[in-house]
Amino acid sequence: MSQDYYTKSMKLHEKLQGKIEIRSKARVHSMEDLSLTYTPGVAEPCRRIHQDPAQARDLTIIGRSIAVITDGSAVLGLGNIGPKAAMPVMEGKALIFKEFAGLDAWPICLATQDTEEIIQTVRNIAPGFGGINLEDISAPRCFEIEERLQDLGIPVFHDDQHGTAIVALAALINACRVLNRRLEDLRVVINGSGAAGIAIARLLRCVGHEHSSCIAVKEIVVCDSRGAIHEKREDLNPIKKSLLAFSNFENRAGSIHEVIQGMDVFIGVSQGGLLKSEHIRSMKQEPIIIAMANPEPEIHPDLAREGGAAIIGTGRSDYPNQVNNALVFPGIFKGTLQARAARISPGMKIAAARALADCLQNPSREQILPQVFQDGVTQKISEAVRLQALEEMH
Amino acid sequence: MSQDYYTKSMKLHEKLQGKIEIRSKARVHSMEDLSLTYTPGVAEPCRRIHQDPAQARDLTIIGRSIAVITDGSAVLGLGNIGPKAAMPVMEGKALIFKEFAGLDAWPICLATQDTEEIIQTVRNIAPGFGGINLEDISAPRCFEIEERLQDLGIPVFHDDQHGTAIVALAALINACRVLNRRLEDLRVVINGSGAAGIAIARLLRCVGHEHSSCIAVKEIVVCDSRGAIHEKREDLNPIKKSLLAFSNFENRAGSIHEVIQGMDVFIGVSQGGLLKSEHIRSMKQEPIIIAMANPEPEIHPDLAREGGAAIIGTGRSDYPNQVNNALVFPGIFKGTLQARAARISPGMKIAAARALADCLQNPSREQILPQVFQDGVTQKISEAVRLQALEEMH
Repeated sequence: MSQDYYTKSMKLHEKLQGKIEIRSKARVHSMEDLSLTYTPGVAEPCRRIHQDPAQARDLTIIGRSIAVITDGSAVLGLGNIGPKAAMPVMEGKALIFKEFAGLDAWPICLATQDTEEIIQTVRNIAPGFGGINLEDISAPRCFEIEERLQDLGIPVFHDDQHGTAIVALAALINACRVLNRRLEDLRVVINGSGAAGIAIARLLRCVGHEHSSCIAVKEIVVCDSRGAIHEKREDLNPIKKSLLAFSNFENRAGSIHEVIQGMDVFIGVSQGGLLKSEHIRSMKQEPIIIAMANPEPEIHPDLAREGGAAIIGTGRSDYPNQVNNALVFPGIFKGTLQARAARISPGMKIAAARALADCLQNPSREQILPQVFQDGVTQKISEAVRLQALEEMH
Repeated sequence: MSQDYYTKSMKLHEKLQGKIEIRSKARVHSMEDLSLTYTPGVAEPCRRIHQDPAQARDLTIIGRSIAVITDGSAVLGLGNIGPKAAMPVMEGKALIFKEFAGLDAWPICLATQDTEEIIQTVRNIAPGFGGINLEDISAPRCFEIEERLQDLGIPVFHDDQHGTAIVALAALINACRVLNRRLEDLRVVINGSGAAGIAIARLLRCVGHEHSSCIAVKEIVVCDSRGAIHEKREDLNPIKKSLLAFSNFENRAGSIHEVIQGMDVFIGVSQGGLLKSEHIRSMKQEPIIIAMANPEPEIHPDLAREGGAAIIGTGRSDYPNQVNNALVFPGIFKGTLQARAARISPGMKIAAARALADCLQNPSREQILPQVFQDGVTQKISEAVRLQALEEMH
């Protein structure tokens, strides 16, 4: 199937030569049209914005425009393929912003992978945008870049971190509803300590997400390719080290296959085909499996069920329970822009996760999340995020 | 009339909230659509571009995308109003790129006015664009910025310089046809030594435009607000000083009203309402007047005619002979992108000027340039530029 998608996708890309385009909203058929949209008439909106920069949101595209910014260092499962090769993904993202949220996103592919230069470049181009979606920037640089840009005055959101974490949290919220459990009782193992793994760990333990509405799971153990991240490891970068403060309280060591034993939840954001039924069987009874590796999940749903999993989600659309960022990022940006909020706060992220979970009145084992094309998902999330933002502003 | 335009323009901008928008060229209505335009299918075009970066032009928007970049330092007649207030102009430019040339241009408004930072930022965002249109960046920084970016591998073109210079040259070419004169006999006074004035002087003297097709006018004198730029002036910045090597050979001093005496051509790119009939009368018989100050030209056409002018052009659409950049920049970028040329060479600029002049089979005193909405202008220019580019590549 994948091969078929690749062939079809190539044909589509060859035909379209760009999945997005600019369209004029103004008519430009006469000299008078030109005099109103361009010189001399355009001088007046310019003057107004010069007097009051906030009016840029009423008089230009800025109130709806998102820069989708990448350095091409961590593109899909393809790795560091550079900025030009990342372009089809960024265009795809822009497509989703438009189709799902009506936002106008433009891809910015950077010729640098230097943290300082990326930060400075984003600052320099920020005045023309209403929001910044950081995309496919590798860990650990992505953390510092996003954090240091939070003072920009417009939302800066690394979707690979927070989009993934929010949709995973929503999946867990509804899994708990279905199985009649409580978030605060869950013991979770996360495989993968890149952007997504770290962000999920932080959100599930409310670290960097301090807010009254945040409920921390009982425990988390994060694994990288060398196994559990614990105190005695001497090969940890500062970001992985920072996990020690809020994860693996029992200081468990060993491979993912060892530390998964006895856990309630497995969340995979790394390597496909990692687990077998027996590993699921070693977990606590009726575990929750969120296997997001793409395109091949950490374990096929059939094998997970065989191992006794109660609920199984993957990143794929052809299995039940697709856990997909596209459920979140259009709505969270839309709500933030509507509120004209300067950042996406912890409260807004949690509001997004709860709104996403609430899109299903009766979640079930086979449906813990709405489908991407379910009506009203983006609307529901954007409204919850907007209200939360307004509450925090007053 | 202007007041009316301002009011109407404000209403239009308030209604549209952005004159451009992103549109999807791909259908995104189903999970399969998403699998082809985004993950997993999108991985294949990414891989192809990674193997061969040139394919980005076939598989993405890059082959048609232009960054319209400003620092907001010299916007229209409004001056240094900053990046956000420049946005309506940049959107207008993007509109014209789309409507006239089918190119997809996106405004980039910079938070810095530092030469080095602007250069570095443009370099950093370049991989996602097929061309760079520098816009409304003040002199003398605009010269260095554009020059140092010529190695970028994609066309970098400061429209306020070259767009203006090319359209002025085309106007002179046809004025000569109408009046049966020769370019090489003309003595020209230019009022204004900003981006446009300097670029016009260079192009008319073939400086920085060394090419067999370039014909230099006989002499040029450039004036700034203190009058003629000559050897004894001690207040000249390096750019103005550089004019001494190829202008004002008689080293004339004095105000514009003095040095205009006896000249064949006046070109104004600075201050409206500067000249009276008597000044035109002091020029050589039947002079050519190109008074481009906006919105008020250096002299009203009626007054210029009273003073004996043979041909009068202005920047305005409500008088005959509008001399407007929009005649040039869409076509010159289109042709350059079609040829996949790495820069816009002197030969390509002159080809654009000649093609623009050739759009009129029978130019007359009342029509030395085609109107902006005349059919086929952009097409004719882009074709001439494309052919010239291909010739230079082989």
